[in-house]
Amino acid sequence: MPAIRTNPERTDSRTLMNDHPSLTLATFAAQLDFDNIPHAVVERTVNLYVDWLGSALAGKGARPVETIARFARGAAGATQHGPCEVLIDRSRTTPYFAAMINGAASHFAEQDDVHNGSVFHPATVVFPVALALAQAAHASGRDFIAAAVAGYEVGIRIGEFLGRSHYKVFHTTGTVGTIAAAATAGRLLGLSPTQMLDAFGSAGTQASGLWEFLRDAADSKQLHTAMAAANGLMAAQLAADGFKGATHILEGAKGMAAGMSSDADPARLVDRLGSRWATGETSFKYHAACRHTHPAADALLAVVQKHRLAPRDIAKVVAHVHQGAIDVLGAVVTPRTVHQAKFNMGTVLGLVAHHGYAGVTEFEQGFDADSIAAFRDNVTMAFDAEVDAAYPARWIGKVTVTTIDGRVLNGRVDEPKGDPGNTLSRDEIATKLHRLAAFAGAATEGEAARLLGNAWHIAEQTQVGSVFEATSHATALA
Amino acid sequence: MPAIRTNPERTDSRTLMNDHPSLTLATFAAQLDFDNIPHAVVERTVNLYVDWLGSALAGKGARPVETIARFARGAAGATQHGPCEVLIDRSRTTPYFAAMINGAASHFAEQDDVHNGSVFHPATVVFPVALALAQAAHASGRDFIAAAVAGYEVGIRIGEFLGRSHYKVFHTTGTVGTIAAAATAGRLLGLSPTQMLDAFGSAGTQASGLWEFLRDAADSKQLHTAMAAANGLMAAQLAADGFKGATHILEGAKGMAAGMSSDADPARLVDRLGSRWATGETSFKYHAACRHTHPAADALLAVVQKHRLAPRDIAKVVAHVHQGAIDVLGAVVTPRTVHQAKFNMGTVLGLVAHHGYAGVTEFEQGFDADSIAAFRDNVTMAFDAEVDAAYPARWIGKVTVTTIDGRVLNGRVDEPKGDPGNTLSRDEIATKLHRLAAFAGAATEGEAARLLGNAWHIAEQTQVGSVFEATSHATALA
Repeated sequence: MPAIRTNPERTDSRTLMNDHPSLTLATFAAQLDFDNIPHAVVERTVNLYVDWLGSALAGKGARPVETIARFARGAAGATQHGPCEVLIDRSRTTPYFAAMINGAASHFAEQDDVHNGSVFHPATVVFPVALALAQAAHASGRDFIAAAVAGYEVGIRIGEFLGRSHYKVFHTTGTVGTIAAAATAGRLLGLSPTQMLDAFGSAGTQASGLWEFLRDAADSKQLHTAMAAANGLMAAQLAADGFKGATHILEGAKGMAAGMSSDADPARLVDRLGSRWATGETSFKYHAACRHTHPAADALLAVVQKHRLAPRDIAKVVAHVHQGAIDVLGAVVTPRTVHQAKFNMGTVLGLVAHHGYAGVTEFEQGFDADSIAAFRDNVTMAFDAEVDAAYPARWIGKVTVTTIDGRVLNGRVDEPKGDPGNTLSRDEIATKLHRLAAFAGAATEGEAARLLGNAWHIAEQTQVGSVFEATSHATALA
Repeated sequence: MPAIRTNPERTDSRTLMNDHPSLTLATFAAQLDFDNIPHAVVERTVNLYVDWLGSALAGKGARPVETIARFARGAAGATQHGPCEVLIDRSRTTPYFAAMINGAASHFAEQDDVHNGSVFHPATVVFPVALALAQAAHASGRDFIAAAVAGYEVGIRIGEFLGRSHYKVFHTTGTVGTIAAAATAGRLLGLSPTQMLDAFGSAGTQASGLWEFLRDAADSKQLHTAMAAANGLMAAQLAADGFKGATHILEGAKGMAAGMSSDADPARLVDRLGSRWATGETSFKYHAACRHTHPAADALLAVVQKHRLAPRDIAKVVAHVHQGAIDVLGAVVTPRTVHQAKFNMGTVLGLVAHHGYAGVTEFEQGFDADSIAAFRDNVTMAFDAEVDAAYPARWIGKVTVTTIDGRVLNGRVDEPKGDPGNTLSRDEIATKLHRLAAFAGAATEGEAARLLGNAWHIAEQTQVGSVFEATSHATALA
């Protein structure tokens, strides 16, 4: 009758603990060394960090984000101060509340990164924790990168482990994100493998996040990422102070998979640890629209550019898509809001045809412009067997464009822009950050430029300092 | 593809929202008025509050509790101050951290109350929130009581709703406790029914707590109650500030039952709301042992007292129990620790035969004394069909005692001490609190007496003040 059991001594449990997937994963996260991470993965992680900064800034002014920030200031009580930066307002607080607020902020604009196979958004739960603890401990850029990679590698594998059944009801970025955040925090706190396992246990038993909020458009998504980051950080700090967690929280008989998945595969937890770098498989979001529209958007862009088509040259467009795209996008015919427009194929293709890009500003300023609405009505979706068979491993984009002068032009992309094989350049990431910072009014162009100057050198900093100001601690060694 | 959807406007969701169990329950919690609560339920709630104070004090010095308290002080950062009392050390902090620490403390000694049907421990998640917010807002005792009853009524019904399948893997006091805490907080914050529903949504999407920790005796149980209280309070404070939650978090297609139960019954959510007072069905823990030992312990006590038996008069005892007792207690033959002793029928009956009570002090000082060990070896358990058939609705206790002079004496109790039909008197509750306070060194006898003087009058206080000191705000009107 566990509900009324007391805490027994710990002795027997440790002697019973043998090697198992949770311990293997925890040991990997605790011992991951910067020098063992391939250079290309380090470079990609820096790019993911800079890309995350843009999303974190973009949360400024968003109602759910500002509400969580007000809560955090009230919960902390005393006049806020601390070593950690809150990116939306540049205030400083403790690691716990900085992780909470930056975690809430960086998932709002829906421009943060995503790992396709695990359907997990790593940046929004990993980097708020990595930045807060690195700033608090004056950690080196090398440890900052190693901690971030630990969070990505752990979170992506746990997301793959829990499988599709988990994602059907649970918001993986909230549930799995808690343990990814704990892995990142634990690495920066220098936890031993056993302590890291304790942190996984305390994080996994707090894993939460249900999709129900989507059905009536509640604000829970920001709460999920805020608390995944904060709870994961808490779990690691508790473990550093001797707080014991379940040793089999992932695969145990009363653990996460037992309670929250019906198709879990423990082998995925340790899939090629140390040789497969899942961090590098992470996709950047390019267009600020539902990811299901991106392949067709890029395919249309290819046709428009190759044939130098103006929007008025186009009579109709057929987007050849997988069933999932029809299921998600089919509902919206005439979007009435920016949000709905991001789920409307015609609007996205219209914006791309007119501006070559469907970003937050393009949506905000023109999703319902007459020209976009006219283009929208000439767009249809058609199920495509090849595209559907390749999904979700590959997101193929195919469109057929019929011009007003009767030409029929086919466009195709095998990976939408932002996917690993078609990743964003540093110039494109910088441009995206400038756009997001300007959109939210979170930084002037000059401030964003200075921020970028710091951020590209994060791995070389002897001590991670301010995001906005080059500090005496943050000496670039390059 | 929900993982990359943005937050749409809220308009359509509100128009779509019709009456449903979650809304009915939220409306009940938001509108529960002290004057509509039967006097007997108010009196019982005061008793449950006083009983909870003893458990909260008993957490002082417990490693997992003190670790969470250290984390909270670090997360808050600045020198701690605030309107809310932390009972283990009488420091003051904000409602969030007071709820967190008092929630961790009051579930440690395993003497806090339990509702049999829902297998939910209400006090440890409800009273930390009620006390913290009442102290912060100088709420009246009447509102304090109404808020506590709202938490009990909501939590017990959600626990019954989620059913046995939920409890198999999830620690109901952690998961359901989050919403019970939100109901209590929301009532004290004066949330509207719609805001209360938002609070339920934000609480339910944070509901967590897995039993996996029990398999290796980790510290998660304290984390579960700490965060259920803190997250529930957070959910209500967010709702008061306009943060939107899922409107069908309990019964929705992607809500708690969908993700965490296979036998949920929505009818239980609104079972006789306002006429059935589930608060009064809550059991007090009398002996500090596994609840499965309580019926036999009380039955033995009845025989010993009726026949004036000394321990040396007893040759053997057979405890007639339900199968669940054999399953849980059968494993421990010779207890090596206090914890194991609390799951050993022979030890519990030995302590009862010698001291008339098996409390924290009796266990700590004598669980392995020669006299207790000798008695233990003369105790056996036997399956009893009548007892098993009545369980879990009724916990019948039956023992057969054979004396050294050959008499065979049968003892029986139909409800173990502490159950609703055999509840504790105020004297017994006060004695229990004095024992727990002394055991943990959390209050002197004089301090405990003054605390009790305040606590028995909580419902009459114009403003809930300090637990320890009668304040100018806390005028007893009696």
